[in-house]
Amino acid sequence: MISSISNKQVKEIIKLQKQAKYRRAVSLFIAEGFKMLKEAAEKGCLVKAYISEFVLEKNSENLEWICKEFPYETVSDKIFRQLSDTVTTQGVLGIVKQPSYSITDILEDQRHIWLLLDDIRDPGNLGTIMRTAEGAGMSAVVMGRGTVDLFNPKTVRSTMGAIFRMPFVYVDDIAEIITKIKNNGYSVYGTAMKGSIAYDMADYTKGAGIVIGNEANGIQDSVLGCITGSIHIPMEGKLESLNAAVAAAVIMYEAARQRRAETL
Amino acid sequence: MISSISNKQVKEIIKLQKQAKYRRAVSLFIAEGFKMLKEAAEKGCLVKAYISEFVLEKNSENLEWICKEFPYETVSDKIFRQLSDTVTTQGVLGIVKQPSYSITDILEDQRHIWLLLDDIRDPGNLGTIMRTAEGAGMSAVVMGRGTVDLFNPKTVRSTMGAIFRMPFVYVDDIAEIITKIKNNGYSVYGTAMKGSIAYDMADYTKGAGIVIGNEANGIQDSVLGCITGSIHIPMEGKLESLNAAVAAAVIMYEAARQRRAETL
Repeated sequence: MISSISNKQVKEIIKLQKQAKYRRAVSLFIAEGFKMLKEAAEKGCLVKAYISEFVLEKNSENLEWICKEFPYETVSDKIFRQLSDTVTTQGVLGIVKQPSYSITDILEDQRHIWLLLDDIRDPGNLGTIMRTAEGAGMSAVVMGRGTVDLFNPKTVRSTMGAIFRMPFVYVDDIAEIITKIKNNGYSVYGTAMKGSIAYDMADYTKGAGIVIGNEANGIQDSVLGCITGSIHIPMEGKLESLNAAVAAAVIMYEAARQRRAETL
Repeated sequence: MISSISNKQVKEIIKLQKQAKYRRAVSLFIAEGFKMLKEAAEKGCLVKAYISEFVLEKNSENLEWICKEFPYETVSDKIFRQLSDTVTTQGVLGIVKQPSYSITDILEDQRHIWLLLDDIRDPGNLGTIMRTAEGAGMSAVVMGRGTVDLFNPKTVRSTMGAIFRMPFVYVDDIAEIITKIKNNGYSVYGTAMKGSIAYDMADYTKGAGIVIGNEANGIQDSVLGCITGSIHIPMEGKLESLNAAVAAAVIMYEAARQRRAETL
């Protein structure tokens, strides 16, 4: 059993929890909880599991598949609490391979409806957006390099498993991908404070790209310059803006609504 | 200048930041940042401002109206950091009266479109929901007693000022309010995993109530028993549910979309 904070594996897990750069370099991350580990295993991404002493003693049924099929280590409760990013931990976490998708496959997805994120900075927002994107049936989430790391512990948790199911890709140049989507025959709409049309006046039925900008500054000018048209979400009251994850949800679900109506 | 953690006012502010029960007892809360204080002042709710030494020296223009019109105290930077709930503080906060609204006024609002929250527990979700409710033009937000305290520092911050503009009320019995809304001639829809119709098939144009349930358990049976009908948000993929603030946003904005279309 691992019971020292200076244990090599403990140090590795803490590094994976805290350093985006290190996560990127080794293409690994930490997933916590039984459901997340199950998803990771099904996706073929689970490398090794770490189980707290307490949980191993108590919760044997839920753990059976992990202990049978994957290498695992037991960790003292005290050390486990230091590894976990959550306040009320389930006492199980794993080192997991980062899923990866090619931009070519993503652009060829037959649903033809892409979400593009131009530098979303809040980890919780990004996780919620991934979760909603799965629910709304998006082809994929394409992220500019300025977007926060998807494998941040808070983001991973907020995806509620969508991180293993929703295709995504980080790209150096969002504008280049927008141009490709347009060249393939699809419109690309971006949110702007003074967007020329209300978001529900755009037609998403034949496929489209939807660009969501940074929480504070919106979409960069260089990206705005290459979209098909700008859209806005009408707001009453004196509100200046909606939360970025909320704005993304409202537009993605309007697209889903139009596309469902189309197939009726 | 206040420079001791054992100062009476410092203790009062910390108590207001941390204890929902105390906030309720004295009907006060803490708002942070220039914009929030401005909103509080406009609403007639600002009682007293606290300004960090650093900000007072540096940022005199932005502070002028506060120092002219309201009692204020200067606080040493070290103490201020302990009072602030944010990581990057603007160096200004205030003791603020809790706005309050009568259920009678709320039920008589001429927009006839109410959001009802049956025990939302996450402070960030509640704040985001208030913010979105303002944008979507809801009459008010009606909350069951099990809903987290709206004056929690994280919730206050997430509202982005909507806490001063959006009417709200806590009620002992959500079911009783639903019955009143129905007796006044409006339908009340509630989200359920197996809701009988898709959320966009409901008609919100003549006014309606929308009930959102607890993050983990949804709407209580006693509340489900008295709504007009249950609705669901269609989900693709393997997702079990949407984030509660996202679900509320998707439905509120569908209502707003239908109502805008109606008036065209």
